[in-house]
Amino acid sequence: MAELGETAAAEEDHLDGLYGLTDDLIRETLAAIGAGDRQRLKALTAPLHAADLADLFQALSAHNRTLFEEFMAEDLDPEVFVHLDEAIREDLIEDLDSEELAKVVTGLESDDAVELIEDLEDADQRALLETLPAVDRVLYEEALGFPEDSAGRLMRREYAAVPSVWNVGQTIDYMRADPDVPDAFYGLFVVGPDNKPLGVIMTSRLLRSKRPVAVTDIMEPDIKLIPGTMDQEDVAFLFRQYGLVEAPVVDEAGRIIGVITVDDVVDVIHEEHEEDLLKLGGVKADDLYEAVADTIKSRLSWLCLNLLTAVLASVVIGFFQAEIEKIVALAVLMPIVASMGGNAGTQTLTVAVRALAMKELTTSNALRIIGKEVLVGGINGVVFAVLMGAIAYFWFSDLLIGVVIGIAMIVNLLVAGLAGILIPLAIDRAGADPAVGSSIVLTTVTDVLGFLCFLGLATIVLL
Amino acid sequence: MAELGETAAAEEDHLDGLYGLTDDLIRETLAAIGAGDRQRLKALTAPLHAADLADLFQALSAHNRTLFEEFMAEDLDPEVFVHLDEAIREDLIEDLDSEELAKVVTGLESDDAVELIEDLEDADQRALLETLPAVDRVLYEEALGFPEDSAGRLMRREYAAVPSVWNVGQTIDYMRADPDVPDAFYGLFVVGPDNKPLGVIMTSRLLRSKRPVAVTDIMEPDIKLIPGTMDQEDVAFLFRQYGLVEAPVVDEAGRIIGVITVDDVVDVIHEEHEEDLLKLGGVKADDLYEAVADTIKSRLSWLCLNLLTAVLASVVIGFFQAEIEKIVALAVLMPIVASMGGNAGTQTLTVAVRALAMKELTTSNALRIIGKEVLVGGINGVVFAVLMGAIAYFWFSDLLIGVVIGIAMIVNLLVAGLAGILIPLAIDRAGADPAVGSSIVLTTVTDVLGFLCFLGLATIVLL
Repeated sequence: MAELGETAAAEEDHLDGLYGLTDDLIRETLAAIGAGDRQRLKALTAPLHAADLADLFQALSAHNRTLFEEFMAEDLDPEVFVHLDEAIREDLIEDLDSEELAKVVTGLESDDAVELIEDLEDADQRALLETLPAVDRVLYEEALGFPEDSAGRLMRREYAAVPSVWNVGQTIDYMRADPDVPDAFYGLFVVGPDNKPLGVIMTSRLLRSKRPVAVTDIMEPDIKLIPGTMDQEDVAFLFRQYGLVEAPVVDEAGRIIGVITVDDVVDVIHEEHEEDLLKLGGVKADDLYEAVADTIKSRLSWLCLNLLTAVLASVVIGFFQAEIEKIVALAVLMPIVASMGGNAGTQTLTVAVRALAMKELTTSNALRIIGKEVLVGGINGVVFAVLMGAIAYFWFSDLLIGVVIGIAMIVNLLVAGLAGILIPLAIDRAGADPAVGSSIVLTTVTDVLGFLCFLGLATIVLL
Repeated sequence: MAELGETAAAEEDHLDGLYGLTDDLIRETLAAIGAGDRQRLKALTAPLHAADLADLFQALSAHNRTLFEEFMAEDLDPEVFVHLDEAIREDLIEDLDSEELAKVVTGLESDDAVELIEDLEDADQRALLETLPAVDRVLYEEALGFPEDSAGRLMRREYAAVPSVWNVGQTIDYMRADPDVPDAFYGLFVVGPDNKPLGVIMTSRLLRSKRPVAVTDIMEPDIKLIPGTMDQEDVAFLFRQYGLVEAPVVDEAGRIIGVITVDDVVDVIHEEHEEDLLKLGGVKADDLYEAVADTIKSRLSWLCLNLLTAVLASVVIGFFQAEIEKIVALAVLMPIVASMGGNAGTQTLTVAVRALAMKELTTSNALRIIGKEVLVGGINGVVFAVLMGAIAYFWFSDLLIGVVIGIAMIVNLLVAGLAGILIPLAIDRAGADPAVGSSIVLTTVTDVLGFLCFLGLATIVLL
């Protein structure tokens, strides 16, 4: 492990001093936990940002983690829970009684609190909500009334807004005087008498304007109103597309009910991308911190599906047992055709899944891109037909075997290109997520057709 | 294509009115381009955000795109170039003469201009820089002096800073009076006499403070100073980890030279994730908009590598030709073992690559996670050994074949779990990117060992 240690140290070098968690710190924390030295633990963790402290929790084993939580007790910054991986957060929350949990929730901003509450079991959620003051409870219940992963769950309830009849001076005086104005915001919303947002004023713009100027004169009227029910993926798309810093969330009547800021969206973009990556790899969720049993459960269904498709491909091979018995070279060469088809198809599929997620694959260009992929597949097919044909010819001293594998390669790479784009398009059209399952459908197609084409051709040409 | 059209329309429904680009707009633009109607084109595109206009360009064929650019001419918002995909941007820039290009560059903020300039060929870059005013030229040459994908390239040169001896009133007066203060910013840096950043003041905080308060009293002193040479991936990590909104970029002496804001980081996070996804899929870069020849070139090397590994696996099968001739069931069943190993390994690999990128796989937990993956692989192996053993037994009415494939399955899933974590760790340790190439090494290992184990065992047990 010494070697691994060196890499990690080298890795952190370019972040030195900027990223709070170091291997030394982990070692010292472990030592302090082992010695049960609360004072030392508190001294070690005091300079850490909540996000680094969360990473520290994640670097520990489950046993040490629980001990660490107990030792820290009420000194633990509630923000740490926000930064924890879900699996670990659940574990740590389970160790808290409802009073301790209520203390954590009240220590958080409203959007962070909702993130914590929404993951609780129904009974725990109800129990927790009952311990909270009525005004908070209503707020959280409203947020939880929005669908999971929606703008309504993501938004912060504390926002800064001023009436459209005010001027800069009134606005500044109000903000200096009113304790209800949130402490940190980038823009102020200008709202009409019906509480509908009319525009936004960057605080820097406000700072640079003279007191008598009307707020409507310096506001940016071209704002994106986010419906509370909008999916967070669409919210992230809008923020990225338009370089938004914050956007008002509105109810069905168009009245402002909250605000989403770009730092929350950074997390969403991160999450959504990560989900896509994991889904394409056949993993349901980030299972790094899950128990072995949970990891097995989450991966088993994908492998079961894969077994089915692998058996299907084998059944196809089974049709040609007599031929393979006569020409055993077929058995040697057949995995190559399937493997090349699978890989070429995966290339196309990856580009297509990404383009669908980015809304870059649309009706207006779908036909053009399908045509391009077929062309790419065909040309690649010819290249590898020549290459593999030559290899097979020299290997088995049989020209016909070379010809058969060559033709099979062309057909399979053509099919791979076509399937790589059509499968995700079809899954997307059916309203499902093309990142899930499309790769298994693709390899089934390329395996089955690869074996069928190669062995079928061989039967016709060679026997 | 009518069916695809309906989906796209349904897809856009939840963004209706919020995302500027619609299928109708694309159709109308095409009609106006066909008719050569400049007035209509300008009317159609006037309400569009630059990002939507860029998407519109991307939805057109290469031919129509060039026509569109010509018709728009000097009415084209320079910002559009920033939002374009690289391949398309290059095409469109090639159509501009150096004077037109200079006009585009001067119409952009400094960070956006650098993004455009850095992609130009050396000769074009020099030609362009010479047409620019000296003050701009020095600025860009400085930025280009930083490594590609570094903080120095990413930063904006315009930032708001005030001396640490000022108070709120002086700051506000300065910002109202000085035309050099950037128009939009979220925080003001407080700098010492040596121009080293001491802290940051959120503009909202400044707004809410009384005039006589010293800036050092309301600044947040705990700031992250980004070295100009830092890789943008590390910059993105810091912003995400600490929820930063903006951070000062400093030179080697620690003096502030620019600022990076979260909206630039959103793009970086997006890019880096996308690269990881594409690399795992065996695609070098986003090739949706590339010409067929470029796409083929970029995908060919990966497929060549895959051909090599597939041939290697076939060579292994070749060792067992005599055995396969005797028991043809081996040929039928052997792809199943390899396929299951490949898929199980890919699951582990995906989680590991992601954890490495997120700095969640470190020395302190590597051994624990390796142990977990071996355990998961072993248990999955037993599950599928029983399943597949039973299937093989009933299929070929041969108990020994069932036993052989069962044992091979256990061995291969164990190996897959181990290889899925060790391969990316080793590539990362060698200083390379574990997202590139790790999947091809993995499938080589699982294919070769899968075939070797299954056919080898069969030789010992069955013959």
